Amino acid sequence: MANDKTTAPKSVRRPRAETPKGFRDYFGAEVTARKAMLDKIAEVYHRYGFDPLETSAVETVEALGKFLPDVDRPNEGVFGWQDEDADWLALRYDLTAPLARVAAQYRNDLPSPYRRFAMGPVWRNEKPGPGRFRQFYQCDADTVGSASVAADAEICAMLSDALEAVGIERGDYVIKVNNRKVLNGVMEMAGVLDPSDPERFAAERGVVLRAIDKIDRLGEEGVRALLGEGRKDESGDFTKGAGLSVAQQSVLMGFVQVNETAKKQLIRMSKSVPEEVASPLRVAAYDNNTHISAFWRSIETSKIWNRQVLSVLVDIVGHSKIGAEGVAELADIASLLEAQGYGPERILIDPSVVRGLGYYTGPVYEAELTFEILDEKGRKRSFGSVAGGGRYDDLVKRFTGQAVPATGVSIGVDRLLAALAAKGRLAGDTAGPVVVTVMDRDRMADYMGMVGELRSAGIRAEVYLGNPKNFGNQLKYADKRQSPIAIIQGGNEAEKGVVILKDLILGAKIAQSATLEEWKDQPAQVEVPRGDLVAAVRKMLGE
Amino acid sequence: MANDKTTAPKSVRRPRAETPKGFRDYFGAEVTARKAMLDKIAEVYHRYGFDPLETSAVETVEALGKFLPDVDRPNEGVFGWQDEDADWLALRYDLTAPLARVAAQYRNDLPSPYRRFAMGPVWRNEKPGPGRFRQFYQCDADTVGSASVAADAEICAMLSDALEAVGIERGDYVIKVNNRKVLNGVMEMAGVLDPSDPERFAAERGVVLRAIDKIDRLGEEGVRALLGEGRKDESGDFTKGAGLSVAQQSVLMGFVQVNETAKKQLIRMSKSVPEEVASPLRVAAYDNNTHISAFWRSIETSKIWNRQVLSVLVDIVGHSKIGAEGVAELADIASLLEAQGYGPERILIDPSVVRGLGYYTGPVYEAELTFEILDEKGRKRSFGSVAGGGRYDDLVKRFTGQAVPATGVSIGVDRLLAALAAKGRLAGDTAGPVVVTVMDRDRMADYMGMVGELRSAGIRAEVYLGNPKNFGNQLKYADKRQSPIAIIQGGNEAEKGVVILKDLILGAKIAQSATLEEWKDQPAQVEVPRGDLVAAVRKMLGE
Repeated sequence: MANDKTTAPKSVRRPRAETPKGFRDYFGAEVTARKAMLDKIAEVYHRYGFDPLETSAVETVEALGKFLPDVDRPNEGVFGWQDEDADWLALRYDLTAPLARVAAQYRNDLPSPYRRFAMGPVWRNEKPGPGRFRQFYQCDADTVGSASVAADAEICAMLSDALEAVGIERGDYVIKVNNRKVLNGVMEMAGVLDPSDPERFAAERGVVLRAIDKIDRLGEEGVRALLGEGRKDESGDFTKGAGLSVAQQSVLMGFVQVNETAKKQLIRMSKSVPEEVASPLRVAAYDNNTHISAFWRSIETSKIWNRQVLSVLVDIVGHSKIGAEGVAELADIASLLEAQGYGPERILIDPSVVRGLGYYTGPVYEAELTFEILDEKGRKRSFGSVAGGGRYDDLVKRFTGQAVPATGVSIGVDRLLAALAAKGRLAGDTAGPVVVTVMDRDRMADYMGMVGELRSAGIRAEVYLGNPKNFGNQLKYADKRQSPIAIIQGGNEAEKGVVILKDLILGAKIAQSATLEEWKDQPAQVEVPRGDLVAAVRKMLGE
Repeated sequence: MANDKTTAPKSVRRPRAETPKGFRDYFGAEVTARKAMLDKIAEVYHRYGFDPLETSAVETVEALGKFLPDVDRPNEGVFGWQDEDADWLALRYDLTAPLARVAAQYRNDLPSPYRRFAMGPVWRNEKPGPGRFRQFYQCDADTVGSASVAADAEICAMLSDALEAVGIERGDYVIKVNNRKVLNGVMEMAGVLDPSDPERFAAERGVVLRAIDKIDRLGEEGVRALLGEGRKDESGDFTKGAGLSVAQQSVLMGFVQVNETAKKQLIRMSKSVPEEVASPLRVAAYDNNTHISAFWRSIETSKIWNRQVLSVLVDIVGHSKIGAEGVAELADIASLLEAQGYGPERILIDPSVVRGLGYYTGPVYEAELTFEILDEKGRKRSFGSVAGGGRYDDLVKRFTGQAVPATGVSIGVDRLLAALAAKGRLAGDTAGPVVVTVMDRDRMADYMGMVGELRSAGIRAEVYLGNPKNFGNQLKYADKRQSPIAIIQGGNEAEKGVVILKDLILGAKIAQSATLEEWKDQPAQVEVPRGDLVAAVRKMLGE
């Protein structure tokens, strides 16, 4: 028999116990913190009349659309496989493509407009990297079937409520609203967009968009250089510019400087009016800095600010039809929001929002967290974007041929969780259970009785279920469980009808402290009658 | 241009808007009802010290184990595909295989024993059928690393609490506990299990297990026939039996009749003792019918019942070592549960639990709902099993070579939801939003203001965001949204400073009623000052 064992085939390799590359597992508090955050968001979305939708994780590649089954393995970017009946299937890569499919498939049953929210994992077949995973959560809300900008305004208001509901305080965030049509109008006025031939100047527009998007980093001079011949950076590398004339550059720079211009105009106006009018003008002007806390702005100054920005935009888009339409939509959004009391201390008309515009057809919005954190090099920077969205068409058209207008927002779940962690606002119960230790293996029923009483009283509690022989291991276990209290009852205690409560939190503090003096009056261990177990635990927990 | 349009290629086929075969989408109340149920279960599990675990949906095929990458497409039963770096990946098919991987991968970091629960979708690459889906929810709780039957007892108690927490009343369910070892002991005594050669008689044991499992349908005579030569059914078809001798059959039938025997013994005993002792004996005897409501059993009669069943089992397993071990474990479980007050009105020692035994190595348990529902043919039957589990070994051994004992339960999420629906206990907010209609497109800001006020007061509310031209469409929309109230304010009302509240629930009742007489004093429509909007809505909602 011994021989048999030693000659057992060595070739049977054990499987590796590894999360697949680019995937992760979430434990305990990580799960509860995310769940608590998403629950709060769902509560706000529900109040706004949005209904939850949970589609299958798997879609036909055909319905996903972006990835067509014209190659042998059409899984670029998605995780895909061929089903037995020859259909190509894939894991969803976002929550918008499934919404499009659902809106088309159930179009006769769903209310129209259809307000829905969705929360769940999506999958990307990309090279994993630090902080980049192949499965992650998305949290979307969309209104399908409404052409009214009231739908866009509503989503901005809802996003504002959701951020405050999860614990981002007013003043620590701002939602910036722009409109793709305004930017198109500016492009038209600058001569880089021809409404009768939309493909013309596409390359120039690409350079222009990228340049405008870099204003924070390059400053006005740098952006102007990129609009013209080009720009040499600090390292000496040269980036070719859009090659626009000075006149063209001026139109575009006027757009880049909208906020500055509005500010100057307000200050100028404040000099020629009575003080009671001038004061709110100056407040509106000086407070247009979204990187500082803005919670004290009033709805009055915010109206002034939004109106001024819109009037500057009217000038810049000039006679462009699409541009004027865009400004009018922004004006509508501003007044719809003001009617509900959402001023620029929460939601701000801000033409500087450029990112992601390619995808959108009308209003776009982005939530930025304005409080500062330290980056990996220890420098202060504002936390930045945690959510974004806008209006898009052709969502359902792919399936039905009928255009259906839609607008929606996506919250970056991991980003927002990181923000809550940075602010110390992460929810999720991290309290470990009370651990009832096992001093006498034969008296397990007694220990189970204790734990049963504690649980019935709503107290999280466990009995130690490992091998009880080594008591040290039991205390190590309690430590690993972040247990606040260990309950001990050996034979002597049982005879006396008492239990010992060990305050593990206080005990840890005492162990850390240099002077035991200060703790001497606070016993980390108390003996109480067995009948007082629940009451004594409650007291020690500070309940 | 017109020509261009008519000659556009017709071959561009639109994608089908279809959920892939065997998958489904969940809308609104379906999502919230399941979430509400799982939240309540999670609360109980948390109180018991179990921590949530959320593993990635994707595992390496190697880690999943059951399906090895030795063929070109190893996706029998799972959805699998080959990753770029040649690893085969697959969607998890249950929550136990990922737990095994995690327990091995993080064995140095996790507390031991490790109590964890997991809730989430799993995927099966099976032929879809009516009610059989390729993606469905599982809800598992397991304790890894404890060899103590206290861990099994704890999971049974937790399951009992969880069922009551979601709304299954005491008396409407029973959790039956058996032990794989007891059955092995009986097999040994019947001469169909040879401890020194476990493979011997495997075929006979298969026939025996299937026969015992059919006791409800075939009765004792039918089971006995299958243990012997075989059985001809009503249609004339013959099923070959295990071919056991009459003596062997008797041992096995003794096991099948354990409950009956215990009952008879209790009644006999009750005849020779004083009335105060006899009474609980008779109660325990006559109430061992898990198909009737049993909530009035006392812990005293339940102790008597469990003890009697165990004493019958002791006789049957005789000198079988493994059998005696099994009975002793059941006795331990019974007293651990009694110490926490869980008698057989909730958790019952019941040797009739056979299903799934092949997988398990020790205690097994199953939650059965005992209330009656009508089946598809209109016949009454008890609802049946909604959860099951037991002790299993070799979970982590595959990865590490080290045996780790584990025990756990899985709740059938869809089954339990169906049970709650049958009992009218389905949670989930199905209340539609108050709908503010749009009478005047230019006054959208006013309507948004109303909806903003309602939401701030915590009332679910929407403004109609579709094309407002056809007012009938707005009321149809409100109907589809199951809206309780429509708010109306046209130009006249705006001038008068009032709003109209239309009670849609009452309106629907009036529309259904044959006589309008009874409703004449209950106006389905009221006019209130604009300033009283929130208060009036609250009143109409009955809040």
